[in-house]
Amino acid sequence: MSSFQFTLLGTDGAARRGEFHTPHGVVQTPAFMPVGTQGTVKAALHRDLRDAGAEIILGNTYHLFLRPGDELIARRGGLHQFISWNGPILTDSGGFQIFSLAERRVIREEGAEFQSHLDGSRHMLTPERAVDIQARLGSDIAMVLDECLSYPATRDEAAASMQRSARWARRCRERFSQLSAFAQATADRSASAEATADRGAGSEVQVSNPGQALFGIIQGGVYQDLRDESAAATTAVGFEGYAIGGLSVGEPVEVMYGVTGQTARGLPVDRPRYLMGAGTPEDLVECVARGIDMFDCVMPTRNARNGQLFTSEGRINIRNARYAEDDRPLDPACGCYTCRHHSRAYLRHLYLAGEMTAGALNTLHNLTFYLDTMRRIRDAIAFRTFDTFRQGFLRSASRLSLDS
Amino acid sequence: MSSFQFTLLGTDGAARRGEFHTPHGVVQTPAFMPVGTQGTVKAALHRDLRDAGAEIILGNTYHLFLRPGDELIARRGGLHQFISWNGPILTDSGGFQIFSLAERRVIREEGAEFQSHLDGSRHMLTPERAVDIQARLGSDIAMVLDECLSYPATRDEAAASMQRSARWARRCRERFSQLSAFAQATADRSASAEATADRGAGSEVQVSNPGQALFGIIQGGVYQDLRDESAAATTAVGFEGYAIGGLSVGEPVEVMYGVTGQTARGLPVDRPRYLMGAGTPEDLVECVARGIDMFDCVMPTRNARNGQLFTSEGRINIRNARYAEDDRPLDPACGCYTCRHHSRAYLRHLYLAGEMTAGALNTLHNLTFYLDTMRRIRDAIAFRTFDTFRQGFLRSASRLSLDS
Repeated sequence: MSSFQFTLLGTDGAARRGEFHTPHGVVQTPAFMPVGTQGTVKAALHRDLRDAGAEIILGNTYHLFLRPGDELIARRGGLHQFISWNGPILTDSGGFQIFSLAERRVIREEGAEFQSHLDGSRHMLTPERAVDIQARLGSDIAMVLDECLSYPATRDEAAASMQRSARWARRCRERFSQLSAFAQATADRSASAEATADRGAGSEVQVSNPGQALFGIIQGGVYQDLRDESAAATTAVGFEGYAIGGLSVGEPVEVMYGVTGQTARGLPVDRPRYLMGAGTPEDLVECVARGIDMFDCVMPTRNARNGQLFTSEGRINIRNARYAEDDRPLDPACGCYTCRHHSRAYLRHLYLAGEMTAGALNTLHNLTFYLDTMRRIRDAIAFRTFDTFRQGFLRSASRLSLDS
Repeated sequence: MSSFQFTLLGTDGAARRGEFHTPHGVVQTPAFMPVGTQGTVKAALHRDLRDAGAEIILGNTYHLFLRPGDELIARRGGLHQFISWNGPILTDSGGFQIFSLAERRVIREEGAEFQSHLDGSRHMLTPERAVDIQARLGSDIAMVLDECLSYPATRDEAAASMQRSARWARRCRERFSQLSAFAQATADRSASAEATADRGAGSEVQVSNPGQALFGIIQGGVYQDLRDESAAATTAVGFEGYAIGGLSVGEPVEVMYGVTGQTARGLPVDRPRYLMGAGTPEDLVECVARGIDMFDCVMPTRNARNGQLFTSEGRINIRNARYAEDDRPLDPACGCYTCRHHSRAYLRHLYLAGEMTAGALNTLHNLTFYLDTMRRIRDAIAFRTFDTFRQGFLRSASRLSLDS
C-alpha cells in the first residue's frame, strides 16, 4: 500500500506550491531531483547534496539493473540502504536508456529486448519486469515503462507509440498491484506470526519498500490531441502522480513549453506533475509557470564537470582565460562551499590541471544554483509573487553566457 | 625573518614529540603532510583534509611553477590565498620532479635545465631560482634545491652528487637571506612610510610570506659516511629544519630504516627532521622510532584512487569480489565520513562503475587512516608507551593484505 501523499498547498496562476510524503520523508514542490544514475550523484557526496538543499534524488533503473544488479541491491536492503541515502528516491523505468541504445535494442509488444552497453549481454525488459526491478530497488517513486519516441516523429508513429505506452502503463499498474497485495499479505502473515506455505503472484520479488508509489507517463510527441488521449488513458488507469515524457528531445523550446502547459492543464489537480529530463534554469521557471511540480536533469552536474557554471550574473565557462586572475567567487550571490571558499582563478586552475576537485567544487556550485532557484520559486509562489520573480529571473543575465 | 620555531616537547627512546610554529599556525609532530601537488590534494576538498586531521599540506614547486605559474600565484597573494588553505604549507624545491624527467633534463653546476612535461618548453632551475619561486609561492617551509640521486648509484656518484647538493644548499641559503633582508627592509620602509627608490638584490621577487622557513636536505645515498659528511656540511650552513632525501627510491626497506636512523642521530636535536617521500604506515611508525618528525607521501591518496585501502585489520583491494555483498564499513575502528556512512559493497560498486565519488570517499578514508595513525603515535610518545604501540601496530594485520 503506497504511503505516498501529495498536498497542494497553494497556487499562483498556474504555478503550484505543494509537498508530497514518502516513506523516506517529505519533499517540497516544485522540486528539482539531482540525477544519481549509478547510485551516486556524479562528483557529489551525499552531504554535499544535503548542503545544496536536495530533498530527493533520482536513480537510473537501467544502470542499476546491469550493475551491481537489482537482486544484489535488494539483498542489501534496497537502494536507500545500499547507498546510505535516507531521503526520498525516484527511479526511472529504464525505458529511456534502452531506447537510446539504437541498434542494440528491439521493441515488441511484449517489451524491449536489448544488449548491455557494458558487456553486450542480452536482456528483456517488459513492463512487468520494470516494476519488479524497481520493487527490488525500493525507490519511493517508481515509473512505468513507456516507449520513448525519437524526435521528429510522424503523427502515426507518435500515435502508435503512445497507445503502446498506454497498454504498458496498464500492465505496469497491474503488476504493481500484485506486488503490493503480496507484500501486504506477507506483512499480515508476519504480523500474525503465521508461517504459511501459501505463495502467490509476486512471491519471487523481494519488495524493498512496501510504501512505494507508481507514476504514469504521458506520451504523444508534439501532437496535442495525442497528448490529451494519452492523459485520458493514463489517468483512467490511475497513478500516484503523472509525468510528461518525450520532451526535451530536440524540439524547439516553445513547442516544449506549449505541450507542457497544455498537457499539465489536463492532469488531475491533486497529483504531482513531473516533467522528465528538463532542463535549463529558465526551463524550470517557465514550466513551473505552466503547472509542473517536479524536474530532473543531468545539466547541472554534467555541465559542472565540463566547466560550465550557472551564476546569478550569467553562465561562466571556467576554462576562459579571462578568469585566470579573477579573485572573485563564481557567484557573489551564492552561499555554497565553493563560492564561500574559492576564486574563479583557482577553479580555472583546477579545471585546466584536470583535478578531480574541479568536478567536485563545480558540481557543488551548480547543484546549489539549481536547488536555490527552486527554493526561490517555492517562496515566490507562496507569496504570490511568482510572476514578478519569473520576469526578473528571465530578464537577469542568468540565461546569457558571459563568455560568448 | 623566519618566524618558524620548533619545540621538542618530549621523547620516548629515539621517538620525538614536538610542535612547530609557522606564520599560518602550529603543527604537532610527528606529522604527516598530505600531498597537494597542483594546489589541491587529489580528490579531497580542504574541509575533508581538516576533518581527517591534516595540519599541514605539501605543494609541488615544479607543477605550480609550470601551471598556473609562481608569478600568477604571487599576484593572487601567494599559495595560501590562491588555494584558500589558511594552514601551514610546505613546498618542495622542484628538484625531485625535474630529476625524474630523465632525458628531458640536463644537470650542470649552475642548475638543472629541463623541458616541461606539459608543453616541452625549456626552463632553467638554479638553486637561487628554486628559492625565488618558493618565495613567490609563499609556503611556510621552503626546501633547498638538491640533486636527487638515482638508485643504485656508486659511491663516487653518490659522493659527487652529495657534494653538489651541499654547494647548492649554500647558494639557496644565501639567496634566501638576500630575499629575507630585502623583505625586511621593505617592511621597515613601509612601516616608516618612507617611499625610497632604493631597490637592492631580491627586488624583482615578490615575497608572499616573509615568515617563511628554509629546510636543508641531507643526501649521500646509502653510504653512511657520505650521509654523515652531508649532515655536517648542511648543518654548518644552518637551516630551520633538516630533511633526509634520496631514500624510498628502491633500496631495501632495512637499508632505508638503517640510513634514516643513523642520519637522524647526527642531526641537531632542536630542529625538526623530515623524511621525504615516505612511506607505508609501517614506515611512518618505524621511522618515528628512529627520530623522524615529518613525513609526506602520495601513497594514501594515490592508493585510494586505485581502490587500495588501509584499515586497522589489514589492507583492502576494494575491487575484490569478496566485498560485493559486504555490508560492513571499510574499517570498523575508523570514524571518517566514509566509514560512518558507507559499506564495502557500495564502495566496490562505485569503484567498478568508475564514479568520481569512489576516489573522493576512498581518499577521505586513507588520509584519515594515515593522520589517525600519526595522532596515535603522538599520544603514545607523550605517554611514553611508544614501544608498546609500535609492537602492537606491527603485529596487527595492518601491514598485511586481506586480499593476497
